[in-house]
Amino acid sequence: MAHQHRRPEFKNIDNTGFAANSNAEGSRLTNKDGSTNLRKTGLRYWEHISTYHTLLRMSRGKFMLLVLLFYTCINLFFASMFYVIGVEHLIGTDGSTSRFYQFMDAFFFSSQTLTTVGYGHVAPTGMLTNAVASVESLLGILIFAVVTGLMYGRFARPRAYLQFSHNVLVSPYKGGRALMFRVATYKNNNLTDAETQVTAAMHVMEEGKMVTRFYQLKLEISRVNSLALSWTIVHALDENSPMYNYTYQELKDSKIEIIVAIKAFDDHFSNIVQQRTSYTLNEVVYGAKFLPMFHRATDGSETILELDKINAYEKVALPEMDFNTEAVESTTAKI
Amino acid sequence: MAHQHRRPEFKNIDNTGFAANSNAEGSRLTNKDGSTNLRKTGLRYWEHISTYHTLLRMSRGKFMLLVLLFYTCINLFFASMFYVIGVEHLIGTDGSTSRFYQFMDAFFFSSQTLTTVGYGHVAPTGMLTNAVASVESLLGILIFAVVTGLMYGRFARPRAYLQFSHNVLVSPYKGGRALMFRVATYKNNNLTDAETQVTAAMHVMEEGKMVTRFYQLKLEISRVNSLALSWTIVHALDENSPMYNYTYQELKDSKIEIIVAIKAFDDHFSNIVQQRTSYTLNEVVYGAKFLPMFHRATDGSETILELDKINAYEKVALPEMDFNTEAVESTTAKI
Amino acid sequence: MAHQHRRPEFKNIDNTGFAANSNAEGSRLTNKDGSTNLRKTGLRYWEHISTYHTLLRMSRGKFMLLVLLFYTCINLFFASMFYVIGVEHLIGTDGSTSRFYQFMDAFFFSSQTLTTVGYGHVAPTGMLTNAVASVESLLGILIFAVVTGLMYGRFARPRAYLQFSHNVLVSPYKGGRALMFRVATYKNNNLTDAETQVTAAMHVMEEGKMVTRFYQLKLEISRVNSLALSWTIVHALDENSPMYNYTYQELKDSKIEIIVAIKAFDDHFSNIVQQRTSYTLNEVVYGAKFLPMFHRATDGSETILELDKINAYEKVALPEMDFNTEAVESTTAKI
Amino acid sequence: MAHQHRRPEFKNIDNTGFAANSNAEGSRLTNKDGSTNLRKTGLRYWEHISTYHTLLRMSRGKFMLLVLLFYTCINLFFASMFYVIGVEHLIGTDGSTSRFYQFMDAFFFSSQTLTTVGYGHVAPTGMLTNAVASVESLLGILIFAVVTGLMYGRFARPRAYLQFSHNVLVSPYKGGRALMFRVATYKNNNLTDAETQVTAAMHVMEEGKMVTRFYQLKLEISRVNSLALSWTIVHALDENSPMYNYTYQELKDSKIEIIVAIKAFDDHFSNIVQQRTSYTLNEVVYGAKFLPMFHRATDGSETILELDKINAYEKVALPEMDFNTEAVESTTAKI
Repeated sequence: MAHQHRRPEFKNIDNTGFAANSNAEGSRLTNKDGSTNLRKTGLRYWEHISTYHTLLRMSRGKFMLLVLLFYTCINLFFASMFYVIGVEHLIGTDGSTSRFYQFMDAFFFSSQTLTTVGYGHVAPTGMLTNAVASVESLLGILIFAVVTGLMYGRFARPRAYLQFSHNVLVSPYKGGRALMFRVATYKNNNLTDAETQVTAAMHVMEEGKMVTRFYQLKLEISRVNSLALSWTIVHALDENSPMYNYTYQELKDSKIEIIVAIKAFDDHFSNIVQQRTSYTLNEVVYGAKFLPMFHRATDGSETILELDKINAYEKVALPEMDFNTEAVESTTAKI
Repeated sequence: MAHQHRRPEFKNIDNTGFAANSNAEGSRLTNKDGSTNLRKTGLRYWEHISTYHTLLRMSRGKFMLLVLLFYTCINLFFASMFYVIGVEHLIGTDGSTSRFYQFMDAFFFSSQTLTTVGYGHVAPTGMLTNAVASVESLLGILIFAVVTGLMYGRFARPRAYLQFSHNVLVSPYKGGRALMFRVATYKNNNLTDAETQVTAAMHVMEEGKMVTRFYQLKLEISRVNSLALSWTIVHALDENSPMYNYTYQELKDSKIEIIVAIKAFDDHFSNIVQQRTSYTLNEVVYGAKFLPMFHRATDGSETILELDKINAYEKVALPEMDFNTEAVESTTAKI
Repeated sequence: MAHQHRRPEFKNIDNTGFAANSNAEGSRLTNKDGSTNLRKTGLRYWEHISTYHTLLRMSRGKFMLLVLLFYTCINLFFASMFYVIGVEHLIGTDGSTSRFYQFMDAFFFSSQTLTTVGYGHVAPTGMLTNAVASVESLLGILIFAVVTGLMYGRFARPRAYLQFSHNVLVSPYKGGRALMFRVATYKNNNLTDAETQVTAAMHVMEEGKMVTRFYQLKLEISRVNSLALSWTIVHALDENSPMYNYTYQELKDSKIEIIVAIKAFDDHFSNIVQQRTSYTLNEVVYGAKFLPMFHRATDGSETILELDKINAYEKVALPEMDFNTEAVESTTAKI
Repeated sequence: MAHQHRRPEFKNIDNTGFAANSNAEGSRLTNKDGSTNLRKTGLRYWEHISTYHTLLRMSRGKFMLLVLLFYTCINLFFASMFYVIGVEHLIGTDGSTSRFYQFMDAFFFSSQTLTTVGYGHVAPTGMLTNAVASVESLLGILIFAVVTGLMYGRFARPRAYLQFSHNVLVSPYKGGRALMFRVATYKNNNLTDAETQVTAAMHVMEEGKMVTRFYQLKLEISRVNSLALSWTIVHALDENSPMYNYTYQELKDSKIEIIVAIKAFDDHFSNIVQQRTSYTLNEVVYGAKFLPMFHRATDGSETILELDKINAYEKVALPEMDFNTEAVESTTAKI
């Protein structure tokens, strides 16, 4: 744990957008869903919220509730205006003397105006009521432009629909060891020209200070023509790896976080889609390899991809290098 | 068939997104229309369907039918609600005592509300009926946001409109042989910066096992500035080709599949469009060359591209190499 | 005219999407507006028309007329249905006995249903009439989805708004000569990362046959960070040019056509835009240079770009090379 | 001030889209908000305005006002038509004899038709009135297609939401000096693959003439994988810099302007976004370094980015090179 690794062959990268001062950062940089684990302060609430991004990311239930709430508020506002002007200007109302029912008549008239359904059994008379109704129907069109745009934008938003394996495995690989995780599209979308970037964030001791360093991990294959079946992404733990000959305890001390970003082109969106995720040490499994997750259909006519097996692995022995998979001190000299 | 080819100059590629284990795969990897011949299992039905992709790909007739069905169901649902609340709250209905006609009144009122046509000869009274109608008109707007978005999305979806020749020809080329197929845009769209990737999937014997290998085929020209006329894509069967000196029988044994992807920029979509296809051995024609498919107009003012000739070829003799075009054993030594 | 040029340093390119057989092509490959001068045959009319492309390119007047025509036709269709079912099912019609007025009542009722305006002074009764009206309002929403999508798509279509100079000049340049033309954005759009590709199509004699060859012209600068002011695009007529030491007559014989494509990124569309044009020999001016087209505002606060001067040039003497600018025979030996 | 700098190692670039003739340009090339400080003349007003760009950039208040104005004008136009045809064809109007109220009846009927709200308490009779109403509702749909498209287009327009520091600092850096400014996303958007281009525009003396030269500044890091935290962009003032060993006075004389463009990919827009800004000399601070703007949350669970500190710096001593930070003559010889 205390010995120093020599890493002469490669440099850490400073172009990750994160910072070197490890004390300045919280526990995890990237959340499991790929979002950044970050809070922004120093601006008033509305200034650091993008309404568009917020409404696009929100869960479906919340979005629908918000639309309903918004719709009710606008109707309350216009109902109040019609009520103040006088419900007698809304012909067709049944002349109820109850204030509540009068207000509700105004409320429903407002909703019929806002949605432009305009039955007309209740209709405006008089300049003022007509003018308010005219403005409301215009406003309704403008507001629903944004609401319906968001409805479709949420529905048709380009997404990669990628499923990552839950674990990163340390597997035997070409006589040595490699980090492996896999990914597959789980929906009926076609991704082509897929490209993966994997960055490792590690706390390392430099000149007596603990600093966070970022290393772009070299992948055996970082780009595929078509992401049709599952894709196992492999980072060999050889001398080109920043984790070369790390013990489990060393990895743990480094608070390693593996940040993954996959970009690809989707035929149907005709757009580039991207998805991100990250792995931390408790998601790393030592001495395991993935089991196959696809096979030929019994009639031989097609290939079957079993998505429930994406995390299926079996335990295997790792080639004896200088690792100790258990979290005990390693005292052997390493290069 | 049993002899070994030496292929020292090039490597197979592992970045196709398909797998090396030939037993794990079905007959054809990519369908003629470019989609992947793959079934995904292990998730519940809805989890591996992208509603967006499904509705975008569906045939026009099916889509229209689905919309009509959906429209009817929602109207049935709201009609039931209005009916349960009481049709006497729908003023303007003719007071029919037949339950069926009462329900139909509610049904048509619902449809007039959902589409916001709102004639108003039938109109809601009472809090509950008004509230339901108000929610329905809001819902109508939200639902039609997705439906109309899809209508236009289907209509304006970026597409390459490429027509491929039905066959791949083995033609004489620079004293040797080459694989050739051709492609043209068949609609009034302009494609620029077109780029082609051709991958061959072949079953080869390696260390006594049949495995599937993928080779990116080297093309004479893989990129054109403008895809105005037809474009003949040429892969020379020289020493850089994985099929160098293959007999017909060897090609057949290799279960060769040629996977083609063309990407280009469309001026009017201002977007990148992509189209894919694949060829199998029964679409390969030995000893043929394409006939010209465009000529000058008789008045000399423009060029005429004859799209019905895209697959027109004539039989020609192939230069004697080491091929036997017929499916008989070749026993000559090859390099 | 009959002498041969040696052009050892560069090759023609075959990746233009046009063809080498000069007899096969019409007079001009690319029209002035950048579209391809090409007619496609061999498919039925509808098969080689992309409705989307056609409706997007159409002039505004034609598009509006088409929409009006389409609207009228659909109303005629539904009016006929309502008429056949019986106008007595349209309550609120004035009971006119004139068949024409009855039909017109049905027609206007149809238009009120299609647009979902639904005044309701005329309203449907009876199952059949109600059902037809219900389907029409649904259809109206679907049809207008495409029409309104096209309206906005036409309005917001990413365009480069580039103005090219009418002429290509042959100007003095670094002791020799160069082809120059210029381009500027004429609207209030910002283009960044602009890239230009210039291709020359020339008829050349090869092995006794006249063939069309395509040469990608080397530009002094082919990419600018920002297309803010005007951009003069320069192709030096030096030994790297396919037109090196060509006489005017030779250029004329070569039926030269200069095809230009500019791609750039527009901040506000957040999209790549592209514009194309072409020049033929009668647009080439010998011995001229462009006049400046921008200057500092008198108050020094901004730069003024004079778009009406984009084609302003003055005649200048060309350095005596081996050209004869007039169309006379040049007999001097050239390299 | 009068001495000459030797700058043998690098060339100015001519691909900025701006011009070398310093007299031809106004004071500032790029405004603080990234737009170009340029006026275009020589075309009629409408010809050099892109309606789309103008309506997209306009402030929200102006846009709403314009929509309201436009709505009123169209209603005035159609109201006039209905009035001229005769308000007696609008059944349901209260038979007022006041011309003003008659016109207002027509006006509100028009607005109910245009928005397709169509209450129907006022409804058209007669061929002509019906025809005009029918056309108006069609026109309403077409017009609102553009208006609602713009509403959503403005709302969902891809934007980078970048905040730049107000100042460029001249900071100590690796024993020498460097220009530094920083940038952060201030909203809840995720930017990946961010790339920065920095261009310096400087007036320099060449062959006795003052000309504007553009230099692409070499950055320590010009691309980051993820723009999660703040990003400090560093240009070392070493021998590769066009400002190497410049005194403050020299910088001032050069009328330096630093033009910045950042492009990145936004996950949620699934699009490339770009933002630009520029710095002039009065925004440069000598002898200062940025203070940290993020720290670990007290519970260690996340990182906190303090956006109000983006411009926070402290004064520091600069390593003595050949600069004089104050605007006095430097007489020392420089290389």
